[in-house]
Amino acid sequence: MQSLQQKASDWSGVKQADAFAIDETNLFEKLGLPTFICLSTNFYTRVYDDEEEWFRSIFANSRKEDAIQNQYEFFVQRMGGPPLYSQRKGHPALIGRHRPFPVTHRAAERWLHHMQEALESTTDIDTDSKVTMMNFFRHTAFFLVAGDELKNQNQGASNKSGASKPAAV
Amino acid sequence: MQSLQQKASDWSGVKQADAFAIDETNLFEKLGLPTFICLSTNFYTRVYDDEEEWFRSIFANSRKEDAIQNQYEFFVQRMGGPPLYSQRKGHPALIGRHRPFPVTHRAAERWLHHMQEALESTTDIDTDSKVTMMNFFRHTAFFLVAGDELKNQNQGASNKSGASKPAAV
Repeated sequence: MQSLQQKASDWSGVKQADAFAIDETNLFEKLGLPTFICLSTNFYTRVYDDEEEWFRSIFANSRKEDAIQNQYEFFVQRMGGPPLYSQRKGHPALIGRHRPFPVTHRAAERWLHHMQEALESTTDIDTDSKVTMMNFFRHTAFFLVAGDELKNQNQGASNKSGASKPAAV
Repeated sequence: MQSLQQKASDWSGVKQADAFAIDETNLFEKLGLPTFICLSTNFYTRVYDDEEEWFRSIFANSRKEDAIQNQYEFFVQRMGGPPLYSQRKGHPALIGRHRPFPVTHRAAERWLHHMQEALESTTDIDTDSKVTMMNFFRHTAFFLVAGDELKNQNQGASNKSGASKPAAV
């Protein structure tokens, strides 16, 4: 079985090493907290105003300000800043926490479209950082599409030991 | 609906703040890579030799050396060291990656029993670090039990937007 990270690379066109180039520079120190808050605010303003109802409706039960805070706290934590997300909510557990949402290929592309525009309209992010962040976002979006597809697997298999290739921690 | 982190605290008896006290000290710098490798080796030696077949069998399809590497790379990354896990495998996605395994309350307690013994037999870990790490492990084990229970939820609900309280990133 192809791993989550292999699917993410294949579908996104972003190699694992390029996605996690976010760990080579401390983007939090480079950009600062206000830039991350601004980016997530720009992003969710676009999402909540999206003319495409099928996409906008995915977020219908979330309060916009909560969505913004969840996102920028995760980005800050993952990109070299203080662990704001875990202090408040625990493990990011990206796949588990996206379980309520239909993270399809189409939804990933729409999410990325809005994020690309949000990055472009956040003027204090330099071009290098934008490229690095988009590689991370693109790979992660498709990692979550791969995670979403697990929901459709035979439920019976998940309760048998040895039913699929494990990735134990 | 109670959140994953609330369930983790209730079931483990470890408050969120105590679980993530791992972020107040850099345990990787304090303990060093060899100690983490030793800890995970001690841990999985106990697991693979467990007299309780029901628990040992959970790991039957994993190679012991892979299990050790996955674990210590995640611990190193999460406790202040280089992002070894993500460089090789991407996001930890703890709930998603534990999906193939039956992470029950009983399995969590058995995991913690072996980890407690492994910590005690790894002599170069000071008492404070052991307490800090066990709080993190205990909370995380029950976070994964909470994540495991998501598998038993109505599958139909997961494909409807707004079907449950979202926690969007």
